[in-house]
Amino acid sequence: MKDNYTRTNQEDLKEITKLCDLSLDIETNCHINIQETQSGDEDVGDIFYRFVILHAEDDVEEAVRVQDILQNDFCIKPGIVFAEMASGKHLLENLNDALRSSAWTIILLTENFLNELWYEFQSYTALFSALTIPNKQNTVIPMRPRNNPLPWERTPFILQSIRALHEDSPGFAEQVKKIFQEGKYKQQKAVWEYRKKNGEVSKQLDW
Amino acid sequence: MKDNYTRTNQEDLKEITKLCDLSLDIETNCHINIQETQSGDEDVGDIFYRFVILHAEDDVEEAVRVQDILQNDFCIKPGIVFAEMASGKHLLENLNDALRSSAWTIILLTENFLNELWYEFQSYTALFSALTIPNKQNTVIPMRPRNNPLPWERTPFILQSIRALHEDSPGFAEQVKKIFQEGKYKQQKAVWEYRKKNGEVSKQLDW
Amino acid sequence: MKDNYTRTNQEDLKEITKLCDLSLDIETNCHINIQETQSGDEDVGDIFYRFVILHAEDDVEEAVRVQDILQNDFCIKPGIVFAEMASGKHLLENLNDALRSSAWTIILLTENFLNELWYEFQSYTALFSALTIPNKQNTVIPMRPRNNPLPWERTPFILQSIRALHEDSPGFAEQVKKIFQEGKYKQQKAVWEYRKKNGEVSKQLDW
Amino acid sequence: MKDNYTRTNQEDLKEITKLCDLSLDIETNCHINIQETQSGDEDVGDIFYRFVILHAEDDVEEAVRVQDILQNDFCIKPGIVFAEMASGKHLLENLNDALRSSAWTIILLTENFLNELWYEFQSYTALFSALTIPNKQNTVIPMRPRNNPLPWERTPFILQSIRALHEDSPGFAEQVKKIFQEGKYKQQKAVWEYRKKNGEVSKQLDW
Amino acid sequence: MKDNYTRTNQEDLKEITKLCDLSLDIETNCHINIQETQSGDEDVGDIFYRFVILHAEDDVEEAVRVQDILQNDFCIKPGIVFAEMASGKHLLENLNDALRSSAWTIILLTENFLNELWYEFQSYTALFSALTIPNKQNTVIPMRPRNNPLPWERTPFILQSIRALHEDSPGFAEQVKKIFQEGKYKQQKAVWEYRKKNGEVSKQLDW
Repeated sequence: MKDNYTRTNQEDLKEITKLCDLSLDIETNCHINIQETQSGDEDVGDIFYRFVILHAEDDVEEAVRVQDILQNDFCIKPGIVFAEMASGKHLLENLNDALRSSAWTIILLTENFLNELWYEFQSYTALFSALTIPNKQNTVIPMRPRNNPLPWERTPFILQSIRALHEDSPGFAEQVKKIFQEGKYKQQKAVWEYRKKNGEVSKQLDW
Repeated sequence: MKDNYTRTNQEDLKEITKLCDLSLDIETNCHINIQETQSGDEDVGDIFYRFVILHAEDDVEEAVRVQDILQNDFCIKPGIVFAEMASGKHLLENLNDALRSSAWTIILLTENFLNELWYEFQSYTALFSALTIPNKQNTVIPMRPRNNPLPWERTPFILQSIRALHEDSPGFAEQVKKIFQEGKYKQQKAVWEYRKKNGEVSKQLDW
Repeated sequence: MKDNYTRTNQEDLKEITKLCDLSLDIETNCHINIQETQSGDEDVGDIFYRFVILHAEDDVEEAVRVQDILQNDFCIKPGIVFAEMASGKHLLENLNDALRSSAWTIILLTENFLNELWYEFQSYTALFSALTIPNKQNTVIPMRPRNNPLPWERTPFILQSIRALHEDSPGFAEQVKKIFQEGKYKQQKAVWEYRKKNGEVSKQLDW
Repeated sequence: MKDNYTRTNQEDLKEITKLCDLSLDIETNCHINIQETQSGDEDVGDIFYRFVILHAEDDVEEAVRVQDILQNDFCIKPGIVFAEMASGKHLLENLNDALRSSAWTIILLTENFLNELWYEFQSYTALFSALTIPNKQNTVIPMRPRNNPLPWERTPFILQSIRALHEDSPGFAEQVKKIFQEGKYKQQKAVWEYRKKNGEVSKQLDW
Repeated sequence: MKDNYTRTNQEDLKEITKLCDLSLDIETNCHINIQETQSGDEDVGDIFYRFVILHAEDDVEEAVRVQDILQNDFCIKPGIVFAEMASGKHLLENLNDALRSSAWTIILLTENFLNELWYEFQSYTALFSALTIPNKQNTVIPMRPRNNPLPWERTPFILQSIRALHEDSPGFAEQVKKIFQEGKYKQQKAVWEYRKKNGEVSKQLDW
């Protein structure tokens, strides 16, 4: 049965890769557009990401691996890992930015997640944003990656009750497609752009 | 007697396969339609399923096997197993979605069903929806699959009183055909579409 | 019939008041014990509550009114309302604490309950704890208070299927007595004390 | 209802005042001990405070008023407001000292809080210390004072998700008692003393 | 995994070098403009730098190495290290000039950083300028260079909470591009020029 799953999974990936190829033109154009935007007066960092991955300090490489899978195998881009958020900012400001400037927040649940209260705080704050900010509903995705996943039993209770994404589950590819929907992304991006345009002055007030 | 049953059963399957072939055009078109819908602004997850399978955590593979049988042998699609409901949502919201966005609810009765109160709650809530929500009448189907079925004697009393579907019963194919009727599906889908169109604003209020 | 109910209701309250008087010694001792505990090294907040009331932000006063009724008319104490959970903690940590350190969770169903997704999340998480954590079975009580109650029709479906407590129902006093049973309280308190003693180190792991 | 709350609140205060009187001997002794310590060779500033109040520059008076309430009405002393931190030190060193030499940090949330990025930085740094430094967990208390409080809607998102203390809330007295627990204070003070004794040389390294 | 990162990193650098070549005309023009400005009566030091590197006395060579990387590999120029600030001025005036006449301030975090309180003071003052002076927001970048980096654990607490730049991190090139944005540079330069023109008289008063 497992083999069967794996095969299905890989077939899924093949299909996706084909889709990736088909959408290459669009993607390439997209890339160029981003480059153009960047070459102008606007900030390089001024990107509305499809996803941000929150992770323990020791999980940077695992987070980057997941980022690569989502970006390269599933064409979900651009994404960012928390460790690569803007330098020179307070880490809590980084967290604020992470939630503000991305459509989905992935919480990497590994054994390291339990090392620091700070990671739990990140996940709680992300979850709270999804519960209180319009359009952010259901945008926080706990994810158990392939390496060193945190078992359900040891996951903090509040996170236990949220449906997590399992990299090793046979339905992984299907789930990923369900989560990162274009419509939801565009909707959130429009809100973000509107706020950027109008909110520069009242920067600290809005969300 | 058993042989006779089995033969009947297999003949049934042959007939069904023919029906499947006949309906291939429709199905293919259907698939394309879904793809088109998905490529647009709408959500990939925005599907009204023919069935959802509620199951114990340890029964994911068994649930997927049953899903495959219903989808491939009986052309009843699309279906979904509970484990593949949208990530990033509360599990109780998943349950709500499962009941809202499918025409029939299958409760997989295995020995594992007794492991957690949570599975019993799922089945009770599904049953309650069939008893209180218009058009959902008789849409919850307890099912004993081939592997590790929960004997009637150990089934919670409330579920004992509902006629269950037995995969190993000779009348299985016949029963399946009786349950998943096109008219009932269309009727429920129409209600679902109506609610989706009108209920976006009063989202939290309705069913 | 209504008058008859009301009379019964008031007679119930008289009886309860008598019981309250009778149990005064115990209660007083109890109070003293708590005071002693507080004067020592232990936290003032380290109380295992009989109940916590989850409520919408605009329902603090209604929640406090219900708390007073339960504490003063029914001698069920100590209880706490969510708004009075420990300051300086993340609101989701407050929710976790609320479920961990109380025997029963009351969900105040008023019209305001629908204002924020956050309240629905609270109720779902409470309910999920009752379904997955040993000894918490049947400890979540949706309650429609006298003022501004949320009608059944507009209650989220999952909560519709749980028997709610109605303050204005003639059987209210009877129901309250049935819910808050000493045996169940002691059982949960013992678990809580055991965990407090042993779980200090593995704080984030247990539940 | 409000009047009722206020009355309860004032009754609480009366009770507390009585407790203050009763504990006068202890408090006085405590005060004397501190005086003795101060009269020696050590720095006057070498006190481990119960609380420090971080505030906007324009809120000094409001901060002092809150300090007086905590010290005089609730016997929580000694406390200090940020404006009274040691002169001749860099303001960021003051901030460091404020967090190091007090058990609890109160962030005064008024309209003025939004005037300077510097206040937000203070609150973020305080919060971060509570998330990363052992024993500082849950020691940062956002507080909305009676005068000119910053409404929740305009509070920076990260701080919105932390349970704040409201001076005008009926549960204020109860909350204050819950926060400033003797056990937690002694624990932190012991750590501070240990570090002072051992850490003088490696001053910049520890926390 | 590390090797993989390094490769990616080096590929990034190659790309960047190409970009450097492409932008040579612009850069050269830019350089000429700067030269012209410098050839007049004005001070040679009258340049608005892209960055200044604050560093311990023993880290001059390391600071120059980092300066070279930023200038030559990333085309971020002109930059200056603190040791090369104008002679004949008080070191604190040098610090003032460093912050006034550069867009970004890099704090070189090495083991030597802890040798003198003076370095900590520099970093605090730089950080404070970013928190209180308009347009300087997020312009102070703590950086751990390849050689002799100061580990996070021994970094002063206030600086711990600011996202640092790590030369050896795989995302280094990406981060550098995000930080030194043309728009932010031009904005600050305009302010600097405006002040130079108008502020000569009230030179010591304003910022």
